[in-house]
Amino acid sequence: MAVYMIYGCATLALLAALIYARKVMAVTIEGKTEEINRFREISGAIEEGAMSFLVSEYKYVALFCCGFAVLIYFALGYVHTEPDFAGLYAAASFLMGAFTSSIAAFMGMHIATKGNVRTAVRARSGIAPAFTVAFQSGAVMGFGLSGLAVFGLITMALIYHELIPDIHIAMEMVTGFGLGGSTVALFGRVGGGIFTKAADVGADLVGKVEAGIPEDDPRNPAVIADNVGDNVGDIAGMGADLFGSLAEATCAALVIGASAAAIAGSSDALYYPILVSAIGIPVCLVTALMARVTETNQDVEKTLKKQLVISTVLMTVAMWFLTHEVMVDEFILNGQTISRNNVLTSLLAGLWGGLIIGFVTEYYTSHSYRPVREIADASKTGSATNIIYGLSLGYKSSVIPVIVIALVVFLSWYSAGMYGIAMAAIGMISTIAVGLTIDAYGPVSDNAGGIAEMCELEAQVRERTDILDAAGNTTAAIGKGFAIGSAVLTGLALFAAFLTSSGIETLNLLSPVVFAGMLAGTTLPMLFTAQTMRAVGLAAFAMIEEVRHQFRTIPGIMEGHGRPDYKRCVAISTTAALREMVAPGILVVLSPLLFGILFGIEALAGMLAGAIGVGVVMAVSSSNAGGAWDNAKKYIETGVHGGKGSDTHKAAVVGDTVGDPMKDTSGPSLNILMKLMAIISLVFAPFIQAAHSWIESILGM
Amino acid sequence: MAVYMIYGCATLALLAALIYARKVMAVTIEGKTEEINRFREISGAIEEGAMSFLVSEYKYVALFCCGFAVLIYFALGYVHTEPDFAGLYAAASFLMGAFTSSIAAFMGMHIATKGNVRTAVRARSGIAPAFTVAFQSGAVMGFGLSGLAVFGLITMALIYHELIPDIHIAMEMVTGFGLGGSTVALFGRVGGGIFTKAADVGADLVGKVEAGIPEDDPRNPAVIADNVGDNVGDIAGMGADLFGSLAEATCAALVIGASAAAIAGSSDALYYPILVSAIGIPVCLVTALMARVTETNQDVEKTLKKQLVISTVLMTVAMWFLTHEVMVDEFILNGQTISRNNVLTSLLAGLWGGLIIGFVTEYYTSHSYRPVREIADASKTGSATNIIYGLSLGYKSSVIPVIVIALVVFLSWYSAGMYGIAMAAIGMISTIAVGLTIDAYGPVSDNAGGIAEMCELEAQVRERTDILDAAGNTTAAIGKGFAIGSAVLTGLALFAAFLTSSGIETLNLLSPVVFAGMLAGTTLPMLFTAQTMRAVGLAAFAMIEEVRHQFRTIPGIMEGHGRPDYKRCVAISTTAALREMVAPGILVVLSPLLFGILFGIEALAGMLAGAIGVGVVMAVSSSNAGGAWDNAKKYIETGVHGGKGSDTHKAAVVGDTVGDPMKDTSGPSLNILMKLMAIISLVFAPFIQAAHSWIESILGM
Repeated sequence: MAVYMIYGCATLALLAALIYARKVMAVTIEGKTEEINRFREISGAIEEGAMSFLVSEYKYVALFCCGFAVLIYFALGYVHTEPDFAGLYAAASFLMGAFTSSIAAFMGMHIATKGNVRTAVRARSGIAPAFTVAFQSGAVMGFGLSGLAVFGLITMALIYHELIPDIHIAMEMVTGFGLGGSTVALFGRVGGGIFTKAADVGADLVGKVEAGIPEDDPRNPAVIADNVGDNVGDIAGMGADLFGSLAEATCAALVIGASAAAIAGSSDALYYPILVSAIGIPVCLVTALMARVTETNQDVEKTLKKQLVISTVLMTVAMWFLTHEVMVDEFILNGQTISRNNVLTSLLAGLWGGLIIGFVTEYYTSHSYRPVREIADASKTGSATNIIYGLSLGYKSSVIPVIVIALVVFLSWYSAGMYGIAMAAIGMISTIAVGLTIDAYGPVSDNAGGIAEMCELEAQVRERTDILDAAGNTTAAIGKGFAIGSAVLTGLALFAAFLTSSGIETLNLLSPVVFAGMLAGTTLPMLFTAQTMRAVGLAAFAMIEEVRHQFRTIPGIMEGHGRPDYKRCVAISTTAALREMVAPGILVVLSPLLFGILFGIEALAGMLAGAIGVGVVMAVSSSNAGGAWDNAKKYIETGVHGGKGSDTHKAAVVGDTVGDPMKDTSGPSLNILMKLMAIISLVFAPFIQAAHSWIESILGM
Repeated sequence: MAVYMIYGCATLALLAALIYARKVMAVTIEGKTEEINRFREISGAIEEGAMSFLVSEYKYVALFCCGFAVLIYFALGYVHTEPDFAGLYAAASFLMGAFTSSIAAFMGMHIATKGNVRTAVRARSGIAPAFTVAFQSGAVMGFGLSGLAVFGLITMALIYHELIPDIHIAMEMVTGFGLGGSTVALFGRVGGGIFTKAADVGADLVGKVEAGIPEDDPRNPAVIADNVGDNVGDIAGMGADLFGSLAEATCAALVIGASAAAIAGSSDALYYPILVSAIGIPVCLVTALMARVTETNQDVEKTLKKQLVISTVLMTVAMWFLTHEVMVDEFILNGQTISRNNVLTSLLAGLWGGLIIGFVTEYYTSHSYRPVREIADASKTGSATNIIYGLSLGYKSSVIPVIVIALVVFLSWYSAGMYGIAMAAIGMISTIAVGLTIDAYGPVSDNAGGIAEMCELEAQVRERTDILDAAGNTTAAIGKGFAIGSAVLTGLALFAAFLTSSGIETLNLLSPVVFAGMLAGTTLPMLFTAQTMRAVGLAAFAMIEEVRHQFRTIPGIMEGHGRPDYKRCVAISTTAALREMVAPGILVVLSPLLFGILFGIEALAGMLAGAIGVGVVMAVSSSNAGGAWDNAKKYIETGVHGGKGSDTHKAAVVGDTVGDPMKDTSGPSLNILMKLMAIISLVFAPFIQAAHSWIESILGM
């Protein structure tokens, strides 16, 4: 039964995405002829830039994935004597995961670059119609991606279940799918993160500060790159990240579940983790249909936040029914008897934990509350106090989310063992369709504002898109909180699956090798953050040089009749992003492999624990500090403390610029670090063990 | 034999301190009468301010310690049936530790406030004589403190060994001494750190930025508070921190050692950890006698750095002999057979690990190398890029030191079990007399420069003190590296001792309660850092208000004939520091107690592991980022990128101000967090266990 339901839900998702896409495309771009031309020119440039980045990026993704697939083929083929084509199976599911994730990102980007201009056009009629277009554009991404993910997962699982006699090994082979998704996310989050902030910081520093022209001014050669960046980072990057979490958490649950006889014996119970994500699709569809902004109810932010609450409540009910209908009564895992209610507890802990984290994130990053206002106050004495308060807020803001995660971990682990952690991760991400809809809504609205500015539409239009954008900023912060929370739980679930398949039942922290491994692991998020922040700095410098060069050499550019070379700026961001992501990418991929091979599985487990522990606090504090600085600046722009142009505002701009790479590059990239290192350990565990034994035998230990 | 040697060395240290003090005091304050009066006025104000802060602070210290002693008395008296007066013993050694540490801090502050003006006076004759005075002032602190610590430790150990039949319990009672030292360090580091940076940031923001007067200008009412702050933070705070490390690491070694029969049976072997610190005293004395700056060799920085290398080399030889002469051949600890060579390995790993950490710290914080110069380059595009590069450098700079610590932990633990970790901590801090001499030398030179400026001495004098001060900045950074490294090892040693006395031999990270505990523990350093950074911000605002008020209300203050009210500024920093340290203080003291009582010893152990893991990377990166920003600014002041007054310089000043609380308040305060939480767990372990069982029985679990 489960399998049919899963395919039904996946089909529903893809249908919904198709219908939403048609609705968006049905909006005609109206106006005077010259306006229409301008619309086409600007939105065409953004679309072209976005697609040219994606094409360049996916060339490298394809190259990297092929190489990595070969590594998987040989490494796993070498150690697995059973089944016959182990290396091939793992490599194939890896490529499938990478491919599916790439398709989803392309789809999201495509519709976003169509939706932005249509949102701007509809904003001429009012907030409500503009909201509808932006929301529907986001929904294409939300439903399309979750449909593809669920479809891919169940298909791979069914095929391998059929082909491979040992069910546990079959599910281990499926984990390649998660690894593939996560590898694409590495490029999307890290490369995309560097792209977007290089363009943003570069455009701001040279445009606003040096040339004194406003944001989104078409005279700034980096302005298109900046708008492209919003799509690249917040749509392709975020999508790939969440795709990875969903795929990986599910793979972890499949692997762990398969080691319990009762689950392995029932296909319903075995595929239950996929079913939970699948059932999220109709739940989210019902929720999305309730999203309504009218001319009488223009509270966009409340509407979006309600989406999260409604989907969580509906999902609670759905999970309850589902668990009682589909899951086995009880099963035994590592000697622990686990009932279906224990599994339900884990799911619900994750689901509601995510909502709490989201709202705590909002508290720390929205200027409706005290923390951000304190940063605005501190800006009165200059940028130094603005930075001190922002950093301090960021650190503090990690406390409650991480304690909530600790509680979710405790509750789910205590209830349902390591299976519980995986189910908590799935629970947290089960409303992904709505979450991603809201996330993707943000950059579409943001772009719409940019287009309105660049096409010199009526001031009213920009005001309306600003309202949409402001709501998007808040939900983006909430979305980041979710993404981090689910990344940590997913990382832990993979960690648990890795230990399960390595046969480790106790990991004694009081052994030199584990403790030293943990200490060494704490340095990885630090190095990774340092690399990604510095990468943004370097890429931004390249952008600044280019913009200065164009200002100098293109005649009439400042008067508005010399056309800036937008493409060169996009190309610079693209090249810089792809070059600068190499070092952090290598760090993430190679450290678990090398560390494990040199020091053994236990040291590797310690290293992962250290990396996850530091990774989570760094990710939350970087994201929130960045969000808070951004909104402190926006708060001042509402006219407080002297408003725009005052010294206080200038001080707040410094904080905003510092926060840019923290919230959009290094912070979210840590999600990938936590998950990717764990899934590489899981997939390569047998190879690492074999290679380490080989080294030990050589050293004669 | 060991006991006599220990007392001999302690006496030697106190004698050396006395002789150095007499030499410093023998310098006469010469000059024209009005100059002498001015000298007396300024240095008197600094001395008075420093002492008035210390007196206020120690009032609270005394109050807090009495309360805490009562808690210890009842909590430990309640759970320990053996010996009869367990609570009393533990409380008494606690009070002794607190008292000894306080005396050492008072002594160091006293001589520093005498040495500063004498250094300024002697700087009129040349660099060499000025260096001698500053160095000797530092040596009073270095030798005085190590002598007192060693004296206190051996005395308490001998008395309790005599009074308490069970040697393991006797040594556990001695740990109160370490707890006392660490409690004073909490006030010294956190309170002192807030004091010094409130004054510094406040004086800079309102003086340099608003009023446009230079640093150390006597018209600035906060200038005396700023100079007082250097002594309070870098002398009293640093001294108490290192006293704590020495005392705690030794207590941990005593407790762990006492559980091995062969060690418990030989008083030489038992007191061997104290003996190592004791033997460091003659080694450091020989080293200190080699410190020579002459008119022909004016490379002060090299001279100071040589001190560290020489003492490490000599100490290596001394440890080799000592271990072979005094330590038992081998002993058995938790089933592991440990030879004297294993113990020596641990000591040397700590000793040399410390030196490596010191020099890596120098690389990242000195403007002779690339990292700091990159920050200076990044300042050309404004303060935002300056901050991005500085944060990134800080994060990156934690990698090698933490990996060195991980290696030291692995090596010492692998060689000599938990005893090895404690010995590694002792090894790292064994050259404390030289380390502290160099640390205390810094603020004395810094103050001398301030006095030269305020007394309007010849420009040449300021140039000379600037050379001394610059060298002091470098060694201060190295000293901070050492302090963090030894704090981590000490924290780990205490953690090990805590687990040993709680009877925990394996701590399974794969249990929900331990893992959730670890996650919860990661938030503590973040919250603590947030609290201390924000505290500096709040205290600095109070200072700014006061300075503005004085500028407004004191007639003729800007023309130099109205006398600013220095005392009010000192009082403001004092009050703010003592008020703002309450919250972080409570956090550190209560979290291990509450967490342990509520969730049990294993959860507490997980929490400590998480706190130490995040604490170390945060401490290193905060300290180094701060040091690097400071020196990037100084590098620009040498004339690079436009020099003083340029926009690049202004951008660098922002980084320096942000770095101030990071490097002098929150970063070093994390040392205390790591050690104090661990020693509280150790001392209260039996009470925590009893209280937790009681709660469990109530809840019927």
